[in-house]
Amino acid sequence: MTTEQTTRLWERLQPLLEQNARDKIADLIDGMTSREIVHTFVHLREEDQLKLLRLLPNDLAAEVLEEIPDSEAADIIEDLEAHEVVAILNEMPSDERVDLLAELGEEAEEIISKMEPETASDLRRMIEYHAETAGGLMITEFLSYAETTTISEVIEDLRTNAEEYQNYRIRYIYVIDAKGQFCGILQMQDLLLAEDDTRLEHIMHSDPFAVRYDATMDELVDFFDQNDFFGVPVVDERHFLMGVVLRRDVLEAQAEQAAQEHLESRGIVGGDEIRTMPVLLRSKRRLSWLSVNILLNIVAASVIAYHQDVLSSVIALAVFLPIISDMSGCSGNQAVAVSMRELSLGVVRPGEALRVWYQEVSVGVINGTVLGILIGIAAWIWKGNIILGGVVGAALAINTIVAVSIGGTVPLLLKKFNMDPALASGPILTTITDMFGFFLALTFASLTLTHISGL
Amino acid sequence: MTTEQTTRLWERLQPLLEQNARDKIADLIDGMTSREIVHTFVHLREEDQLKLLRLLPNDLAAEVLEEIPDSEAADIIEDLEAHEVVAILNEMPSDERVDLLAELGEEAEEIISKMEPETASDLRRMIEYHAETAGGLMITEFLSYAETTTISEVIEDLRTNAEEYQNYRIRYIYVIDAKGQFCGILQMQDLLLAEDDTRLEHIMHSDPFAVRYDATMDELVDFFDQNDFFGVPVVDERHFLMGVVLRRDVLEAQAEQAAQEHLESRGIVGGDEIRTMPVLLRSKRRLSWLSVNILLNIVAASVIAYHQDVLSSVIALAVFLPIISDMSGCSGNQAVAVSMRELSLGVVRPGEALRVWYQEVSVGVINGTVLGILIGIAAWIWKGNIILGGVVGAALAINTIVAVSIGGTVPLLLKKFNMDPALASGPILTTITDMFGFFLALTFASLTLTHISGL
Repeated sequence: MTTEQTTRLWERLQPLLEQNARDKIADLIDGMTSREIVHTFVHLREEDQLKLLRLLPNDLAAEVLEEIPDSEAADIIEDLEAHEVVAILNEMPSDERVDLLAELGEEAEEIISKMEPETASDLRRMIEYHAETAGGLMITEFLSYAETTTISEVIEDLRTNAEEYQNYRIRYIYVIDAKGQFCGILQMQDLLLAEDDTRLEHIMHSDPFAVRYDATMDELVDFFDQNDFFGVPVVDERHFLMGVVLRRDVLEAQAEQAAQEHLESRGIVGGDEIRTMPVLLRSKRRLSWLSVNILLNIVAASVIAYHQDVLSSVIALAVFLPIISDMSGCSGNQAVAVSMRELSLGVVRPGEALRVWYQEVSVGVINGTVLGILIGIAAWIWKGNIILGGVVGAALAINTIVAVSIGGTVPLLLKKFNMDPALASGPILTTITDMFGFFLALTFASLTLTHISGL
Repeated sequence: MTTEQTTRLWERLQPLLEQNARDKIADLIDGMTSREIVHTFVHLREEDQLKLLRLLPNDLAAEVLEEIPDSEAADIIEDLEAHEVVAILNEMPSDERVDLLAELGEEAEEIISKMEPETASDLRRMIEYHAETAGGLMITEFLSYAETTTISEVIEDLRTNAEEYQNYRIRYIYVIDAKGQFCGILQMQDLLLAEDDTRLEHIMHSDPFAVRYDATMDELVDFFDQNDFFGVPVVDERHFLMGVVLRRDVLEAQAEQAAQEHLESRGIVGGDEIRTMPVLLRSKRRLSWLSVNILLNIVAASVIAYHQDVLSSVIALAVFLPIISDMSGCSGNQAVAVSMRELSLGVVRPGEALRVWYQEVSVGVINGTVLGILIGIAAWIWKGNIILGGVVGAALAINTIVAVSIGGTVPLLLKKFNMDPALASGPILTTITDMFGFFLALTFASLTLTHISGL
C-alpha cells in the first residue's frame, strides 16, 4: 500500500473511533500490515490509542501491541486497568508477553498477580531470565509426549486439541522419558512414515540437541548457524523441557541488538529512542552523552589554547584546524565501522589488535598522503606559501595514520575488557585525534614560524 | 569454544595441510562452528586456502564457502578450476549458489556453462533477478504434487526419495492444478489427519498465499511480519511455482542490508570491507568518500577565512570554533540516527519531515541551551570575559537547534527523492552545521568586537 493510502487509513480510523464503531475498527485493523499498524498507531493521540485498544477484540489488541515498539506499548499499557491488560496479554505468545512485562518494570507484578497461578509463576520465572538468553527468548508453547506414547495416540491428541494447537508454532514433537527428562525428537513427517501402533521411542531421534536456559545470544546464533533447525528445545539443570527458542526469534533479537548498537554509536544512550517519547526523557538521554563529549572537546581544544601565540602569528592556521580535526575523525570512524563489522562477523577477535593495526596503517599511509597533499595544495594556493601547505598537509597525513590506528584497534580493546565498543569508541577516537591533530599542526607551525608568520 | 582453543584449531590445521591429511582436515572442519570456520579461514595464506578447499570433500568445501563473506569466497573461487567450482557449487543450496555466482560477475558464465543444462538455465535466470527480490532470495528445492495425487502416493514418494529430500527444507507441500498453476498448500500434519486414499485437492488449503518473483525486500518483510509462515511460495506471471522464499533468508538479508547501511553511514562506500581485501581497493573505496568530504570541509572553512580579521582580533575564538563544529555534528548525528531508526521501523514516513522537525526542535532548544551555557561558562572562566562566553554559548546553542533540525529531516528528504540516506546524510549535515556554526560565532564576535577584541 502506498503512503497516500495509509494516510487515508488513518483518517478513516479517527471518525470510527468517535462513533465507537467496534466492528468497523476491527475490520480496518485486521486488514493492515504491521508497518501500517505501527504508523497509524503512533499518529493517534494518547487518549485515542487507549480507546482503540479498548474497542478492539483482545486478540487484535494483542496484535497491535506486538507490532509497536515495546517501550511504546509499555507506556500505553500503564494507563489501562490491570484486568484489561491481563485479557490482552492472554492472547499473546509467551515470549512477546514476557518482553512487554519486563519493559513495565515494577508495575508488572500487579498485572501478573491477576493471571492464572500457573501462568503467573511461569511469567515471573521468565522475566527473571535475561532477555538475551535462551530462557528470555523461548516460547513455552510446545508439544511433548512420553516415550511410550503410540503414533495413533499422538494423532488422536492432535485431532482433539487441533484448535488449541493452531496457534502453536509446531514443527517438532518432543519426547520425554519416564524420569521426565527430554530424550528424543520427531518431525511431523516421521509420524507419516511408520505404523500407527509404533511407540515414539522406536522412531524418535535420540540424544537430541538442546540448549540450557542460560545459553547466551552468541551461543544461540552459533547453534543456528551450524544447525539448520526451525527451533531448539530449552532445558533446565535436570534436563527437563522448559520451552523452545525459535530461529526467527534469535535472528530478530540479533537484528534488534545491531540496531541498538548503531544508535549507541551515534550517541543515543540506552540504544533506543522513538520521537513519541517525552521530550525531557529524549533530551536527557542525548545530553548525557553530549555533556561527556563537550568536556572531552574542551580538553582537546586546550591544546590550541596552549599554543595560542603560534596561532596569532599564523591566523591562517585557524582555518585548517577544524578541517584536520574533522577529516581525521572521518578516517578514524571508517576504521571503527570496519572493526565493529569484523567483530560481528567473527572475522576478527578482540585479541588481534596488532594485526588490525598493521592492516589499518597500510591504508592510513595511502589515504593520509592523498588527503595531506589535497589540503596542502589548497593551503598553498590560498596563501601562496608552500611551507604553510607543508605544515597542514603533514599534520593531516600523520594524523590520518594515527586516527585509523586508533579507530581500528579501540573497538577490539574495549571488547577485550568487556566494555561497550559502540558507545565509547567514537568519543575516545575523536578526543585523541583532535588533540594530536591540533598538536601536530601547531608544532609544525612553530618550527617553521619564520617562514609562515603573518599569514 | 574460547579464543585460545580456536587459535589452537588453526595451528593444528597448518601441519595437516602440509601433510595433505585429507581425513583429519575434514574431521577438524566438520567439528567447527561457523565463526570458527570464518576465523580460521581468513587467517590462512591464499595458497593454503586453495589447498584446503581442494583437500576437503565437496560438501564440506561448500560449507566453508557458505560461511565466509561472499566477496572473500568469490576471490578464492576465481583461482580454482571451473570443474572444481562446479563440483563444490553442486553441494550448495540454490540461493547460496546464486549469491556466489552473482558476486563473480562475468566469470560466472564459464562456470555455469559446465553445469547440467537445466541447472544452468535456472541459475542464469536467478542471477538476473535482483538479489533483494523474491526471485533472488528464493530456493528452488520444494515439493509439489498434482491436485489429484492421493495421500498414500505422496507418502510413497516421500519414502522413495527420502535421501534426496533430506537436504530440502520441507515444511509445506505445494499443490498444482491441471494447468500447472499453483493452487493449494498443505502442512505435513494435514497428511496425518486424513485417510490414505484422500486426494490432495480435498484437504489442501485453496487460494494459498504466494508472492511474485519481483516482490521487493520491503514487501517480503511486510509479508512475514503479517504471516507467521516458515516460507512463502514464489510464482511467475502465469502463477507457475518457481521456488520458495524462507523467512530466515529474508531476515538474514534484512540484517545484512542494515549492516551495510551502517558501514555506509560511516563512509565505507559499497557497504562492505573485510580487511583481507587488497589494500589498494580498501584505500580507494574509503578515499572516494573522504575526498568528497575534504572538499566540503574546505567550503565550510572558507567561512572562517572570510572573517579572518575578526578572528585575528579575538584569537581566543579559534579555540572554540572546532568545539562548536564538533558538538553540533554530534547533536545532528543523534538526530540522523533516530530518523534512520524510525524509517526502518516504519514509525515515520519520508513525507513527514515537518513533524520530525518540530519534534527535533523541542529537544534542540533544551540541549542547545544546556550545551551553550556549559561552553559559555568555560569561555567566561578562561578569559574572564562574559561577552566572549555569550558569543560562543549563543553560537553553539543556536547551531545545535540547526543541527538537529537538519539531522532529523535530511534522511527523510533523501529517502523521499530515492537517494541513499545512509551515505549522504552525514556529509550534508556536517557541512551545513560547520558553515553555520562558524558564521554564527564570527558574526556574534564582530557585533561585540569592542568588548572582546584582544582576547
